[in-house]
Order: sequence, then structure tokens, then C-alpha cells
Amino acid sequence: MDKEFAWIASIRQKRMLSEDVELGIGDDAAIVRVPDGYDQVLAVDTMVEDVHFSRATMAPEDIGYKALAVNISDLAAMGAVPKQYLVSLAVPKQGWPDEETRRIYAGLEEAAALYGMDLIGGDTVSTADKLVISVTVTGIVETSVRLLRANARPGDVIAVTGPLGASLAGLDLLLDQTNGVPVPEMDQDQLIRSHQRPVPQVKAGRLFAELGIRAALNDISDGISREAKEIAEASGVRMVLDWKRIPKPDILALFDEEKQKDWVLHGGEEFQLVCVFSGKHWRDVCLLAEQHGITISPVGMVEAGEPAVILIDGQESETLTKSGYDHFRDRE
Amino acid sequence: MDKEFAWIASIRQKRMLSEDVELGIGDDAAIVRVPDGYDQVLAVDTMVEDVHFSRATMAPEDIGYKALAVNISDLAAMGAVPKQYLVSLAVPKQGWPDEETRRIYAGLEEAAALYGMDLIGGDTVSTADKLVISVTVTGIVETSVRLLRANARPGDVIAVTGPLGASLAGLDLLLDQTNGVPVPEMDQDQLIRSHQRPVPQVKAGRLFAELGIRAALNDISDGISREAKEIAEASGVRMVLDWKRIPKPDILALFDEEKQKDWVLHGGEEFQLVCVFSGKHWRDVCLLAEQHGITISPVGMVEAGEPAVILIDGQESETLTKSGYDHFRDRE
Repeated sequence: MDKEFAWIASIRQKRMLSEDVELGIGDDAAIVRVPDGYDQVLAVDTMVEDVHFSRATMAPEDIGYKALAVNISDLAAMGAVPKQYLVSLAVPKQGWPDEETRRIYAGLEEAAALYGMDLIGGDTVSTADKLVISVTVTGIVETSVRLLRANARPGDVIAVTGPLGASLAGLDLLLDQTNGVPVPEMDQDQLIRSHQRPVPQVKAGRLFAELGIRAALNDISDGISREAKEIAEASGVRMVLDWKRIPKPDILALFDEEKQKDWVLHGGEEFQLVCVFSGKHWRDVCLLAEQHGITISPVGMVEAGEPAVILIDGQESETLTKSGYDHFRDRE
Repeated sequence: MDKEFAWIASIRQKRMLSEDVELGIGDDAAIVRVPDGYDQVLAVDTMVEDVHFSRATMAPEDIGYKALAVNISDLAAMGAVPKQYLVSLAVPKQGWPDEETRRIYAGLEEAAALYGMDLIGGDTVSTADKLVISVTVTGIVETSVRLLRANARPGDVIAVTGPLGASLAGLDLLLDQTNGVPVPEMDQDQLIRSHQRPVPQVKAGRLFAELGIRAALNDISDGISREAKEIAEASGVRMVLDWKRIPKPDILALFDEEKQKDWVLHGGEEFQLVCVFSGKHWRDVCLLAEQHGITISPVGMVEAGEPAVILIDGQESETLTKSGYDHFRDRE
């Protein structure tokens, strides 16, 4: 058995979680079945060392977990059921012992287990300098369900599935960039965990899908300012957000407002969903969410007008121009 | 429109080739339909600069073309119809101007157009040092068709769909490692093209799928010695290859036998298929292949025994131990 065979054997799942996998890793390609009445949903996302994460702030398990989670979040925003994933890992020849690569796979498996996903394809190659991990995911969604960004209409309610700002606050804590503001250790841990182990909102996505109503969903992986802008552009509407209504971790109040706004409005990798529902369905959405233990907070309204995101804060309002995290801008 | 929006717009297909794409690039994820009676086939493959290719020997278009073609070849080996692809591209901040990145996408599109594939997802990020391109492909195959490596049985015929050795010979020409052997320019061009633009054998794969017979298929992306070994391991059989029967480009006869054997037996990225058929179907396979303009050359037989690949050359025979291209071994 040569090195690659040994490697494949080590990452190969012993048993598939889902009967939809007809053939897993081990041949030229995998074979999966998409059940009758469903379409398949696919997404790909890539994380690069020292661009999207640094080893100083993320353990190998965190890197693996997040590389899959960021994709699961895309499935959630389509209302899909996560199904399978394929991994491409380019590992630097120096500085990444096999043990750490294995820990990345362990993190991937951890996220996969939470959402019942099967690993059906993998490619591990060496590279010169920085680790690159790219994950492709599949999910399924009913053929009748389309929770698209283009579905927002004037008069609709804008809502989010949970507090925003924790992930970027956690990163600033990890990077020691919080200017000495005294954050209790318990809160620190929670914010840091939000950065390292954000939770995709699959349950909420599925609930809205099963409702069978018109809805626009976007996952907040790049900051609500940017995600709302995408809905505005795709739907041809103005998205008006109310700063005071946007849920935030209480601990953020310790920081000055500029920092808070940066974290809450422009923070990336927060896997909450920004959702748009028609006013007539809003009450049903709230009732159902409550029954299923899902948080849903109204944060604004959709208006007719040129595509834009407006932030209202008391008497003041501003057009949000900073468009969240830009994939071409370096972070960390 | 910010930089990423502009970028996505530039690579986004204007029109999908296939009706199976319900939703292309532009939302959180793509949605595709798998027709009744078919399963979906998925594969992922990654190419790294200075590991799997070098800029000295591959134009940006070649890199894009090959990154998709290597995956299409995996689909061919499953007898699948190519359908969609998703691209993850990590581009170094220095030395790769936007124009060259665009040329990589042009090469991807070129391969996609040849096989009627639609781009449904993409992620372009920056990295520090070396370009990493990872492509995931989908295809469809009839639920009844399984052209697996485990399908070989003692007494079966082993065949290949075309000459072997051209790709590695082309690479050696590009790297000026042919020790001054005078190769006519016309032949040089052909060998180099085999390296830069290898042709996945989708038509052959589909023909064998449609035949509805037991067959084991593997694409020769890592050298026939290794690919035959994979069939031997998966099926629990000995694969006996006859050196004199393996088709090779005539021009290879100019080189010493050691070089020839290295190129032909261990050369990677040759997208011919190694196929195993039962003796009773062999005649039908040959007839049908001829009718459809597909070359199929018998190169050996399957025997009972411990999994191994044996090469017979006249009176001599040897067990092939070198297992083709190893993804952990550097090339170029």
C-alpha cells in the first residue's frame, strides 16, 4: 500500500450515514442518489492560511470544522438538507506535520457528524507555502422550494436568526486588539468560540423551507451590510435596518460604538441568516419559530427604491457603503 | 459594484447549456436537477503550481483546461455524462495579473464547452505563493450502470482506448530532458499537446455504459501500472500486461527502452481508459467501438492470484512495483 492509498484509507468513512450515497471514496468518482421530488444544492468555499485564518487563532480542528461549516451555512440559506462533501486540501511541505493534517480532517468530520454529512471525495496534495482548503458540499431541497435573494418585496419584514458581532469580536480578542477593555473570561470564551466554531442555521433554513412561503434568505458569512445589499441588488429594493433592533451579545456594550458597528454590521463568518418575509406571513413565522426553539428577531423593513441598505439609528440614518468582508481584501 | 461582484459577473455564464441547472452562480448555492433514472457522479481534483504544473510548460489556458479535463476523465471512467463544475482558485498576490487569471477561466470554459458542462459555483481567493486550482465536477449515470474497479474477474480481457506515453514524453520535451534525441517538430507538437491538452474519453465511457455489461474502468491519470494495480486491488486479481501490445506513439521508438517504459507505464495525466471486459463480450465491444470510431486495443489478461500487475516482455516478465504518479511525490 503506497502513501496515497494509506492516506485515503485513513480518511475514508467506515460507514455512510445516508443511504443516498451509492458509492463513496475509492473509485474514480462517487455516486449519489437524489430522492424523487428533490433537487440538489451545491456550493464551494475556500479558506487560505493567513488570508482567511491564521494558525495563531485557529487550531487545526477549528480550520477543518469551519471550512465545512461555511459551506453548510450556504446550504442553510437555501433551505436545504446537508448531504455530502468533498475536500481539496493543499498542505505546505514544511511546517504541517501529518498529525496536524489529520486534525483538520477530524474537524471536518466533527462538523459533518453534527449535520449527518458523508465525505464522498477528497484530494490531498502538497503545496509550497500556505495551506489551502476548499470544500464542496451537496444538499437537497424540495423542487418547489426556492429561498432566493431575489424574493424580497417592498413592505416585507427583515429578520435575523440570532445575535451578530460575536465572531469578529472573538477574532479581535484572539488578536489582542480590544484595547484593554476588560471582558470577563466567560464572555471571552463565548466570543472566541463564535469565531472558531460558528453554527450554521440549518434548522431555521429547513423550517422556512417547509413553510412553503415566499422568503429571501442569505447567510451572514460576510457581514449583514453586505448580505442585505445582495438581497437589495437581487430583488431591486431598499433594505432599511434599525440599529437598535439588531440583536448583539450584551458584552459588546463595553466597547465604543464604532467598534460595535464594525463588528455587528461588517463582521464576517457569522452564520446567522438574514431573512425577508412578507408581512402577512410574519406572525406565522414567529409562532412556528418559537415552537421549534428558533430565535427570529425583526431588524427592519423592505422599501421600494434604488437598491441600497439604509441603517437607522434613532433620528439618524446612513447608507451603508462598506460592503462587509471582501474576498479580495486580506484579513487577520 | 465591488470587486468580487464584478469578478463573479465576469465569469458567470450568460446562458446554461443544460436545462438541468435550475439555478447557477449568484445566490448562496446552485440548484441542479438529476433526471429520473439517473444517479449523480461527483469528483474533485486539485492542481498546484510547481507541483502538478509549472508556468514554464503550461499557459494559463492549459492550466484551466487541464484542471477541468482531469476531472472529466474521472467521470468518463464511471461511464458518466459530464454535467456541471465548480471552481476554487487561490491566486498568489504577486506575479499573477488579473489577465492571467481570466485566461485560466477561459481554459476551463474551453474544456467545459467541449463536453457541454455548466459552471455553477466558483470561489476566487488570494494566497501567498503558489496558485492552487481545485475543480469539482458532477455528471450523471444510469442507476443500473456501475463501471467499478472491483468488476474484473479472472479470464477477462484488459484493453486501453489509445496510445500511452505521449503526455510524459511531451513534458520531457518541454523540460528539455530528452537528451538531444532528434524528434521532428511535427511530432514534438503532438507530444506536447498530449501533455497540455489531454482528451478525456467520455465517448468511450458512455459507449461501455450503454452496453450494459460488466466492465471495470479506470482512467489513466497516474500511469497504467498504478491504475491497473487499483483494479487488481479492488477486484482481488492479477493483471497481466503485454508490453508489446500496449499501443505507443511511433515516435517513442527513437528513445531507449528505459525511457519508453517510464513514459508508457508510469506516465501520468494520460486520459486514456484502462478497461476490463469479460471474454464473452470482447467481440461485441470491439465491433461497437469500431462502429463509433473508438479505438480499443487489447493489452493483457486478468488472472486469478494475489493482487499484482505483471508486465510480460517477450520471454521476460516482471512485477510492476513503481506505482505511477504519487500525489505526494513532486513533479516537474
